[in-house]
Amino acid sequence: MKTLQQLWEELFQPLSAFGYKKGQGTTRLSWSKEFLDAQTFLRTYAEAAGLHCERDGWGNLLMTVPGAEDLPPVYTGSHLDSVPHGGKYDGALGITVPLAIAKAWQQEEYQPRRPLTIIAFAEEEGTRFGRPCLGSQSLTGKLRPQEAESWRTAEGQSLDELLRQAGISGDPFQAHLLPGKCFLELHIEQGRALEDARLPLGIVSAIVGIRHYQFTWEGVTNHAGTTAMKDRHDALVAAAAMIGKVYTYAKASSTPQALKEKPAWAIVSTVGQIAAQPGANNVVPGKAEHSLEIRCATEEGLDRAIAFYKDAAGQIGKTYGVSCEIRQLDQIPPVPMDPDLMQSFEAAAKSCGIPWQVQPSWAGHDAMILSHELPTAMLFVPSQKGISHAPEEYTPAEEIGQAARVLKRVLEEWTEK
Amino acid sequence: MKTLQQLWEELFQPLSAFGYKKGQGTTRLSWSKEFLDAQTFLRTYAEAAGLHCERDGWGNLLMTVPGAEDLPPVYTGSHLDSVPHGGKYDGALGITVPLAIAKAWQQEEYQPRRPLTIIAFAEEEGTRFGRPCLGSQSLTGKLRPQEAESWRTAEGQSLDELLRQAGISGDPFQAHLLPGKCFLELHIEQGRALEDARLPLGIVSAIVGIRHYQFTWEGVTNHAGTTAMKDRHDALVAAAAMIGKVYTYAKASSTPQALKEKPAWAIVSTVGQIAAQPGANNVVPGKAEHSLEIRCATEEGLDRAIAFYKDAAGQIGKTYGVSCEIRQLDQIPPVPMDPDLMQSFEAAAKSCGIPWQVQPSWAGHDAMILSHELPTAMLFVPSQKGISHAPEEYTPAEEIGQAARVLKRVLEEWTEK
Repeated sequence: MKTLQQLWEELFQPLSAFGYKKGQGTTRLSWSKEFLDAQTFLRTYAEAAGLHCERDGWGNLLMTVPGAEDLPPVYTGSHLDSVPHGGKYDGALGITVPLAIAKAWQQEEYQPRRPLTIIAFAEEEGTRFGRPCLGSQSLTGKLRPQEAESWRTAEGQSLDELLRQAGISGDPFQAHLLPGKCFLELHIEQGRALEDARLPLGIVSAIVGIRHYQFTWEGVTNHAGTTAMKDRHDALVAAAAMIGKVYTYAKASSTPQALKEKPAWAIVSTVGQIAAQPGANNVVPGKAEHSLEIRCATEEGLDRAIAFYKDAAGQIGKTYGVSCEIRQLDQIPPVPMDPDLMQSFEAAAKSCGIPWQVQPSWAGHDAMILSHELPTAMLFVPSQKGISHAPEEYTPAEEIGQAARVLKRVLEEWTEK
Repeated sequence: MKTLQQLWEELFQPLSAFGYKKGQGTTRLSWSKEFLDAQTFLRTYAEAAGLHCERDGWGNLLMTVPGAEDLPPVYTGSHLDSVPHGGKYDGALGITVPLAIAKAWQQEEYQPRRPLTIIAFAEEEGTRFGRPCLGSQSLTGKLRPQEAESWRTAEGQSLDELLRQAGISGDPFQAHLLPGKCFLELHIEQGRALEDARLPLGIVSAIVGIRHYQFTWEGVTNHAGTTAMKDRHDALVAAAAMIGKVYTYAKASSTPQALKEKPAWAIVSTVGQIAAQPGANNVVPGKAEHSLEIRCATEEGLDRAIAFYKDAAGQIGKTYGVSCEIRQLDQIPPVPMDPDLMQSFEAAAKSCGIPWQVQPSWAGHDAMILSHELPTAMLFVPSQKGISHAPEEYTPAEEIGQAARVLKRVLEEWTEK
């Protein structure tokens, strides 16, 4: 009998070929030929392992291990699409490991009490329309036809055209997530917390909330020669001081000491966009605008951070004689994972003798969308050097094998419940 | 007999009407109808005062008080063009005050030994082709027909078309500045140094040199969620730290204490342009670029400032784990004013009982171009609140009258030499 890790490797290796080019990594955009071919491959594999398959009106593939009883299923899965020139593991791992588990069950002639439905989501990465987690939003009926009408890909295609071209029929806007028991997602960490801690497994405590803001600094546009330094109201100098504050506050919130004392306040915070006006090298900028993103596992931590930044902006404004307007653009609340599922993961890791840590997920995932419908939890394996969305993405097969054993136990536990 | 101030006011008031619109300030772009009408007005006034006038192939107007002897003339003057929605004083002052002096000489029946040529330059502001001081460059033969071929105004017009349309004939590329004795330019300060010092007169020590640089910071583009603060190589955070250094160094170089101890090191320094890449609000910027301008009255001060900035960039790079490339784009050397002319200005101010200070000019002027050909000096009158290039530009007539008396003495001294 093959080990779970062997089964997984036998599935993952051929799947990884779809969209892969040497030196260019994996490009498997949702609904592309590579994507559809990968889907067909998965379907063939799943049907051979005794799973019942169906594709929904969005292009998500649902593969179900029949249960002994007609009960709401346990869901698991992740996304099949990749970013351009991405890695093999991001997404595909959370589909192939459960499929290998189903294959192992077939070997063992094991049938769960509840059905297990493995979902291969389409369009989690947001590469087609600039919006992430669309597949899970489709499944849970969160998309509106009106908003989708204006969506266009970089090549100018509409959703309708893409789906028609891919041969996908059905209504992409109708919720069709049946009542379910829970949702579990295995994913690569995409960060370095596990590698830093030299641990092979992460149990996710929460998916962080995200808030975006726009800062607009208004000073006085002036001659860069004749305006003495003491007479300036330089909006860019103020913006630069703010960027420094954003960095130092976030960094201080996540030192080992701070994580020990106030883990709920740990944030990451980023300024990724900036512009100065009028934007001439010989003019003191009268206006500067920049973005601000804050991520935190708790609302308390998000509130505390933005309060600090607003206060800092006020002080900076006074120092440089400029005004600051702060506009909140959006707000995704933090999503705590289900405590019972987390406990099952911990118990399974313990009984498998695999060390783990509990940690937040700093990136969004389909699990974030599903968590509003079902008890949800996530399991992380390490990302070597924290790299993802790049061809260098890598996780040793042994670590994946360990995570697979933990996930198998938990799926067996929850399909029995 | 009218006072010099009265004579000036009688000339300046009607001239100020050309291009002026209530609430919109003065718009007298080179070669526009308003500009040409103003030129015709000046010519009429000058000829009535006994001056000999000619317009060159560029559109500069040269108005000459004949000398008793056939000697190289003393030159004075400034520019007739304005920026869009500018003020009345910038440029026009340095033409109208000498013309009023010539008128006073006519009243006094005074003839200088040398000729005095008053130049009304065209296109100092650089509004037509984005290049300043073109009129003085034309006069001194510094322009090349090849480079001018590609010039276009915002409306798409070539130099050739503009000149033809304005009815200007002759070769705009041939040097025709006759051998001369010296060049003197009276101008508004455009800064606040005189107002701050409560002085009506500034004698310019040097026109500052200007250097432009481009800073390129290279870090690592990364996920703004999963990349822990300690693992970031954020190019924009580094750029922001640099902008802070640029500001604080320049400010410290020009405190009252620093100006007293090391006046030669006083600079102004500006970052006016900035961009971050890839420029998404959820991506740690792997690249950031910004401009840097340094202005200083001495090469020593410029050298010292850029050495400090390069050192700071190295330290910032180490702190944030990013690299920095600094590219010098251009370099305009500082231009010291002629010591003999400066001394004449000081002696004249003293004998007129008018308090003054010696100070650099932080902006460029036609005098900068002329200084490469002739002994050159400049005289400043205060700009209220330091405002220029705006309708609010203002200098009290009494202060202009005082400067006119000083300039008259110096012109009388140097036309006799």
